[in-house]
Amino acid sequence: MDIDYVSSLLKEFKAGGMSLEEALDKLKTLPYEDLEFAKLDHHRMLRQGFAEVVFCQGKTVEQVLAIMNRLAEYNRSILATRATREMYEAVRSAVPDAQYHELARLITVERQKPAVDNERFILVMSAGTSDIPVAEEAAITAEIMGNEVKRVYDVGVAGIHRLLGQRQLIEQANVLVVVAGMEGALASVVGGMAAKPVIAVPTSIGYGANFGGLAALLSMLNSCAAGVGVVNIDNGFGAGRLASIINHMR
Amino acid sequence: MDIDYVSSLLKEFKAGGMSLEEALDKLKTLPYEDLEFAKLDHHRMLRQGFAEVVFCQGKTVEQVLAIMNRLAEYNRSILATRATREMYEAVRSAVPDAQYHELARLITVERQKPAVDNERFILVMSAGTSDIPVAEEAAITAEIMGNEVKRVYDVGVAGIHRLLGQRQLIEQANVLVVVAGMEGALASVVGGMAAKPVIAVPTSIGYGANFGGLAALLSMLNSCAAGVGVVNIDNGFGAGRLASIINHMR
Amino acid sequence: MDIDYVSSLLKEFKAGGMSLEEALDKLKTLPYEDLEFAKLDHHRMLRQGFAEVVFCQGKTVEQVLAIMNRLAEYNRSILATRATREMYEAVRSAVPDAQYHELARLITVERQKPAVDNERFILVMSAGTSDIPVAEEAAITAEIMGNEVKRVYDVGVAGIHRLLGQRQLIEQANVLVVVAGMEGALASVVGGMAAKPVIAVPTSIGYGANFGGLAALLSMLNSCAAGVGVVNIDNGFGAGRLASIINHMR
Amino acid sequence: MDIDYVSSLLKEFKAGGMSLEEALDKLKTLPYEDLEFAKLDHHRMLRQGFAEVVFCQGKTVEQVLAIMNRLAEYNRSILATRATREMYEAVRSAVPDAQYHELARLITVERQKPAVDNERFILVMSAGTSDIPVAEEAAITAEIMGNEVKRVYDVGVAGIHRLLGQRQLIEQANVLVVVAGMEGALASVVGGMAAKPVIAVPTSIGYGANFGGLAALLSMLNSCAAGVGVVNIDNGFGAGRLASIINHMR
Amino acid sequence: MDIDYVSSLLKEFKAGGMSLEEALDKLKTLPYEDLEFAKLDHHRMLRQGFAEVVFCQGKTVEQVLAIMNRLAEYNRSILATRATREMYEAVRSAVPDAQYHELARLITVERQKPAVDNERFILVMSAGTSDIPVAEEAAITAEIMGNEVKRVYDVGVAGIHRLLGQRQLIEQANVLVVVAGMEGALASVVGGMAAKPVIAVPTSIGYGANFGGLAALLSMLNSCAAGVGVVNIDNGFGAGRLASIINHMR
Amino acid sequence: MDIDYVSSLLKEFKAGGMSLEEALDKLKTLPYEDLEFAKLDHHRMLRQGFAEVVFCQGKTVEQVLAIMNRLAEYNRSILATRATREMYEAVRSAVPDAQYHELARLITVERQKPAVDNERFILVMSAGTSDIPVAEEAAITAEIMGNEVKRVYDVGVAGIHRLLGQRQLIEQANVLVVVAGMEGALASVVGGMAAKPVIAVPTSIGYGANFGGLAALLSMLNSCAAGVGVVNIDNGFGAGRLASIINHMR
Amino acid sequence: MDIDYVSSLLKEFKAGGMSLEEALDKLKTLPYEDLEFAKLDHHRMLRQGFAEVVFCQGKTVEQVLAIMNRLAEYNRSILATRATREMYEAVRSAVPDAQYHELARLITVERQKPAVDNERFILVMSAGTSDIPVAEEAAITAEIMGNEVKRVYDVGVAGIHRLLGQRQLIEQANVLVVVAGMEGALASVVGGMAAKPVIAVPTSIGYGANFGGLAALLSMLNSCAAGVGVVNIDNGFGAGRLASIINHMR
Amino acid sequence: MDIDYVSSLLKEFKAGGMSLEEALDKLKTLPYEDLEFAKLDHHRMLRQGFAEVVFCQGKTVEQVLAIMNRLAEYNRSILATRATREMYEAVRSAVPDAQYHELARLITVERQKPAVDNERFILVMSAGTSDIPVAEEAAITAEIMGNEVKRVYDVGVAGIHRLLGQRQLIEQANVLVVVAGMEGALASVVGGMAAKPVIAVPTSIGYGANFGGLAALLSMLNSCAAGVGVVNIDNGFGAGRLASIINHMR
Repeated sequence: MDIDYVSSLLKEFKAGGMSLEEALDKLKTLPYEDLEFAKLDHHRMLRQGFAEVVFCQGKTVEQVLAIMNRLAEYNRSILATRATREMYEAVRSAVPDAQYHELARLITVERQKPAVDNERFILVMSAGTSDIPVAEEAAITAEIMGNEVKRVYDVGVAGIHRLLGQRQLIEQANVLVVVAGMEGALASVVGGMAAKPVIAVPTSIGYGANFGGLAALLSMLNSCAAGVGVVNIDNGFGAGRLASIINHMR
Repeated sequence: MDIDYVSSLLKEFKAGGMSLEEALDKLKTLPYEDLEFAKLDHHRMLRQGFAEVVFCQGKTVEQVLAIMNRLAEYNRSILATRATREMYEAVRSAVPDAQYHELARLITVERQKPAVDNERFILVMSAGTSDIPVAEEAAITAEIMGNEVKRVYDVGVAGIHRLLGQRQLIEQANVLVVVAGMEGALASVVGGMAAKPVIAVPTSIGYGANFGGLAALLSMLNSCAAGVGVVNIDNGFGAGRLASIINHMR
Repeated sequence: MDIDYVSSLLKEFKAGGMSLEEALDKLKTLPYEDLEFAKLDHHRMLRQGFAEVVFCQGKTVEQVLAIMNRLAEYNRSILATRATREMYEAVRSAVPDAQYHELARLITVERQKPAVDNERFILVMSAGTSDIPVAEEAAITAEIMGNEVKRVYDVGVAGIHRLLGQRQLIEQANVLVVVAGMEGALASVVGGMAAKPVIAVPTSIGYGANFGGLAALLSMLNSCAAGVGVVNIDNGFGAGRLASIINHMR
Repeated sequence: MDIDYVSSLLKEFKAGGMSLEEALDKLKTLPYEDLEFAKLDHHRMLRQGFAEVVFCQGKTVEQVLAIMNRLAEYNRSILATRATREMYEAVRSAVPDAQYHELARLITVERQKPAVDNERFILVMSAGTSDIPVAEEAAITAEIMGNEVKRVYDVGVAGIHRLLGQRQLIEQANVLVVVAGMEGALASVVGGMAAKPVIAVPTSIGYGANFGGLAALLSMLNSCAAGVGVVNIDNGFGAGRLASIINHMR
Repeated sequence: MDIDYVSSLLKEFKAGGMSLEEALDKLKTLPYEDLEFAKLDHHRMLRQGFAEVVFCQGKTVEQVLAIMNRLAEYNRSILATRATREMYEAVRSAVPDAQYHELARLITVERQKPAVDNERFILVMSAGTSDIPVAEEAAITAEIMGNEVKRVYDVGVAGIHRLLGQRQLIEQANVLVVVAGMEGALASVVGGMAAKPVIAVPTSIGYGANFGGLAALLSMLNSCAAGVGVVNIDNGFGAGRLASIINHMR
Repeated sequence: MDIDYVSSLLKEFKAGGMSLEEALDKLKTLPYEDLEFAKLDHHRMLRQGFAEVVFCQGKTVEQVLAIMNRLAEYNRSILATRATREMYEAVRSAVPDAQYHELARLITVERQKPAVDNERFILVMSAGTSDIPVAEEAAITAEIMGNEVKRVYDVGVAGIHRLLGQRQLIEQANVLVVVAGMEGALASVVGGMAAKPVIAVPTSIGYGANFGGLAALLSMLNSCAAGVGVVNIDNGFGAGRLASIINHMR
Repeated sequence: MDIDYVSSLLKEFKAGGMSLEEALDKLKTLPYEDLEFAKLDHHRMLRQGFAEVVFCQGKTVEQVLAIMNRLAEYNRSILATRATREMYEAVRSAVPDAQYHELARLITVERQKPAVDNERFILVMSAGTSDIPVAEEAAITAEIMGNEVKRVYDVGVAGIHRLLGQRQLIEQANVLVVVAGMEGALASVVGGMAAKPVIAVPTSIGYGANFGGLAALLSMLNSCAAGVGVVNIDNGFGAGRLASIINHMR
Repeated sequence: MDIDYVSSLLKEFKAGGMSLEEALDKLKTLPYEDLEFAKLDHHRMLRQGFAEVVFCQGKTVEQVLAIMNRLAEYNRSILATRATREMYEAVRSAVPDAQYHELARLITVERQKPAVDNERFILVMSAGTSDIPVAEEAAITAEIMGNEVKRVYDVGVAGIHRLLGQRQLIEQANVLVVVAGMEGALASVVGGMAAKPVIAVPTSIGYGANFGGLAALLSMLNSCAAGVGVVNIDNGFGAGRLASIINHMR
């Protein structure tokens, strides 16, 4: 589509009429591919370090298939969130190396493992077993974006010694993702133990006055520990993405 | 007012026409004193072990004065909550031994120290310094109702070692009152450490998405630790009262 | 079970085979069993008087099965809440003496009846017939934890004489659990009649401006009767647990 | 008073001096008096049995004065709600027989007592002393509209025997107005005792999770007793007005 | 159950040792029938003029069947609300003259038409066609309780002339029930047109910022027209019951 | 169609066969067709430029069929919103030229294309692919009401260059409809770019703290750009209708 | 600041190297004046037809003064909203022709009356007298932006004939602004009467379950009349601005 | 400072003067300073890189003074948030080098400028002038913690070209803090432009349906741009702290 424009741009660069920096700059804001129902931003990889991620909820199977198909043509690693198994089946027929993560509801394509700095790991913690699907969404997101990830699950504050038993791991982690439902107190306790950034993910696990995750969300926003940033309820992807951005800072 | 009725009742008891148990039973549901704007339940001491407590908010100074005046005539210990200094000044003119607790906004009259079992103490904990007024309301309430009370303030979970330093005290306490604003996580952590009942009091301390104590309230209601009962936001009195009832169980 | 482990640990330290730091570190976190997706706290029986209780909601059948299987090995009495029949079927195949309480959605294993003090009973009351599932969750929880439990159901305040007819039972009870949906007024009325602690459980029974139990919850938190502690909406387990803790106080 | 206007209008039409359309248009909208910032509906007395009532909140003192002045010219009884003392002072200068009810924040003018059927009385009940201002707003409203009103204050459900002591009065009343803050349980209990209509008025008395009267409001809307109609929080006037309409039914 | 007590009571009355009034009074607060999961109040007919109404939601089919079966033995007219067809099928097997009202989800048994005063009718109005199920619940409730009911449906305020076309009927009605979802404005407009009591029923019809009927509920509570009492969202039964009580006032 | 009726009515009045009052009364309420469960307003075309639109949610299939059948007799273009496929199948059997728009859940009948001014177009924009169903509801509504509509989908603000790429179209549009879920920021950005009216439609697309579209709704209501009017969550129809009214202004 | 850039641009235009359209286009997105604490967008007049409007709330008096001072240098008409009298006094000292509208809290400077098409007027309606401040904010905003404005105040739906009396004016208006607090029903009724766009402004007038305007806001968003766009609570300015944009469409 | 204490403790243990249990216990809880109403955590500098920060709201002037006085003795840089001028005056009398930042309500003591890496700066952006107080709280917090901070204020999305004019700065920043009230859309737009972490701070600036910052909060939590972490409403301090932690990662 932008073939001509990109061609001339590249030629000009080759001819020395444009610095590398200028060329990259122009490529960053290049037009997108228009599928009518979606505008694919193939340059996001350049701008933000990872291809456009597909939010499947509310899309038809056909739309997800078409988008994934196009993205798979231009990118080595792609990610789709909140995908049903039905969507995955459709995608796999066109993109055979797609994988499905049932618990986390993710479709991933990973054609080449990104380089990973094993010294700097992201620690994903969950308060309970029931929070694991959201925690896995965060962990797999961070992994596909090129991070070493460690997991510690079921360390809610009601058994504080289980959490204290992880103190060393907490202190070694470069970024922490804390996933908790119910009252979400884990974020505050970890926030007070860690000297690194904590990304808190409230989950909708609970019942009654939990109001679909509101209790944990408010709890995390009001954390008495500084150094905690919060993402939307059940937004494992957002937490994994933000953790990855921070973990890649040098 | 019920003089005649009570007289005849007492005489019948004295004459042996009624057992002690029956006499007490009848006295428990005796009519009250009617001040038109208030119906004073002078028999509550018999029914529930402490005189009627005056909730001053929304009452005029004159009403508080009149009620306290009447209660002071029939009871050794009386308590008024959410009282302004102005109310206290009025009360003191009529009830000279009334005392005012500025921080806790309580008026107390205590003519005879109740017997206290020093072995069984109530531990009142606060997450922050700003929660102390509510904590004091609970503590003083429990004290005037005949309990040994210990206080541990400013042990919020963001500095978990400060809390862990109180483990022995927590284990020794007979009943625990946990007062916390912001995200209220202290209740869950203490609930997991203690084998005794925990009464959680959310406070309105905080700002923004705290929504006047809602964050702490929801947090405490959703506590992942069992054994936690919650009272209304800023309701130090209610917590102290409930702690006292439990602490007197034998 | 960890006696051996702890003994050898202490001996190794005394013998100089372990630094102070290492010993300290190991002791701080008395081991739990790690199933990866869950950390089983086999010491909770020692710390809090009852084994870890399994909250089934949000867990897979496989996870519930694995956890129950391990707990059943170490404990005489175990409890799982919010369990589906499907979960129960799975558990029973491995733990044949497991029982299912359909209405209360509980799985219980009770290999030896705990000693019960029949003089001190917990009274579980429900406002309506529709509140019974939550009331049963509370009652069965209290029973498996070693309490005498009496039940009085369908005594909502709209027919106050039905409630007054229970006055004697209310006065005899050692702890009261009041389960009510709709406007939850039962807690306030019982709170005013009883001189013992009242644990109020709002239920989600109702419709419209009930907002999933919010009406009853707010009502109970704002109870004009002191001596009332509130647990989460539909949290029969929490109420039964708290009642049991209080009822065992001597 | 508009008889002349209407008569002349009809005559002009019959005489052909006005088209059908014009006549129709004029009759459709029986005139009100237009003060620019207010349109006074002098015909409301005819349509609904009482003059337009002035809601003072949000109006300037000048606007209240002007409106009251005009209403006082055409009506024997007038009523203004949520009036400040400053507004009253201004009104009194122009309407010397105006009276101010400080607690209820009402201004009334009553030049001729309406006929009252003493056999049929409205019973206004309040749960606490702090609810009296709203209760008085209801009671005075009903009185000026020609009803016998009885008052029973401070009969909240936490002392159920105080309420039961009023059973006879409750059974004799023709309409009941129940004013309660906090958890508002009084409405349900009275609703179950009375065979007559109950108008429930939640008040904003309380704190914390009361949320400005929301707790009492939801409680009353979810009342397990049928036969209860609810008005807005603190809306004593509305309750008095509705009670009066019902009480005048024959 | 209370046979002996009632027998002796009746004998005493017959013997002249008790006035009719006294006998009725005692019967009003007679004990109820205890089905364990429900306490049937067979005397409610005496106290409030209609038998206990069964709220089916949250009850099992077996419970509904047992309760209806017992009520059908003692009463000429019975009513069950929020009943499923499955419940009805069960009830009909035991109570063959039971009828089901699909739209209104009511089961009724009516063995003898109550006397009805045709001069005094209740007008049930709905804003839209979608509000009819709730309106029918109100209408049928009022009918079985012995009232003449007229229905006017689909007269929402967006086509104000449709509503104005009903002015005569509105003015003739003795009590008005206004059922409306969405913004619920119909209650305010009718409230301004009628000189009789208006019972407003918000419905959950709508979507988005309707929040399950909250929009209509708040709208009706804040009605600028006085004389409007509000019941819970979708509570057609409550409205019909209250309308019936008012309509029977003489 | 009522021309004859109205003519004869006027003639009868002039001839004296009808009193003024009667004539007035009849004219006030120009007749609608009464189907008992619905009152069809066949004059709406005259009053507001388009036939009554059928809101199908909450109606039975039979009701929708009957209403559509009648409307189809009197109008060239008709529209039904929130229709299920089942409703459509029923309608098509009676109105064979009815069409169904699956995504937008609309049934349309369009017998004669209305005249359209191609120079003045409405631009319907969606933030994401998942918002398209609501956007299509708006677009098709505007089209059937005689407007040229252009669509630009998937231009959310997270890829601002995709939006800026549409600047020219935005400046040329006569009215803009902005459909967005999640945080709904698109409305503010477009509102700042356009000098024409912007109609913002929040959608319920999102999860967690989106609370069914509340996040986008509040966002749009608080837009820092002036010139934005908001409709209900997911109310594509309302937006299309309002856009059409504005677009027809000359 | 951009003097050089603008100069060269203008010269190029004069020299014919740029069309008028191109020149305007470039001027539209010219840089702004940077006051550090504010970035003044002096070209908004070109882009959107009116100068940047100053939202004073949350700004210091000094900031308002500095901004107004700069705007007054470049524009003929300027507007500041939510201004205190103190702000006005400060502004007037620097901009002597500034005027203050106390009720509407607006500061205006209007050096040259804009041309106004008297045939096309905006009708601003208020439900009550207390809503007038917001209504005036809308009216004055529309006037300074060059519109003929008519006002009709105090025509709430509780006295529907007062509203119907304005039918002709409503039908003649080109755009309608409906300002209402309490239940906000006026918007729906006017929306059903008018064939022109209706901009609904909820106000915070009311009390109790009004929740600061929420009741009116939800009511208006759920209006059963199509053709209604809603702005924020008390946002008279936004309504006036949107009405002006629509009214200038040709 | 506790080096001596810890050394002697270890020596005593080795020498046998202390049991393992005792040593363990003492080490577990490294001492803090106990002021009774506050527990000062002088070791936080070691654990988290900055001294304990004082949250002044809800504390008395005396408490703030005492705490600051103690902290000033042990630390080079100290910070108190939400401080009133009165608190500052008291602190300054004891800590003469304390400074007050009126707008940001901060008290700072900075005795030695921390080393700052000027290459890595934090960019603090505000949507409006009214958001500056919160933005300054974030900026000053980050500065005292040793970061280079740049500020860009008043770049709300309604004038998108003002924001686009900052693209270079946005791309150069190492961490971004976005402060916005009203609809908070700035966070999403910046989140889409930046490849670095974005910390979003909703402010309570706005009115009506802003609900004290809720609109901006929900908007930011639902941001369609990944890589955004949110802190509490008006929590400039928390944002500055988190930004500082991230900015110091190497």
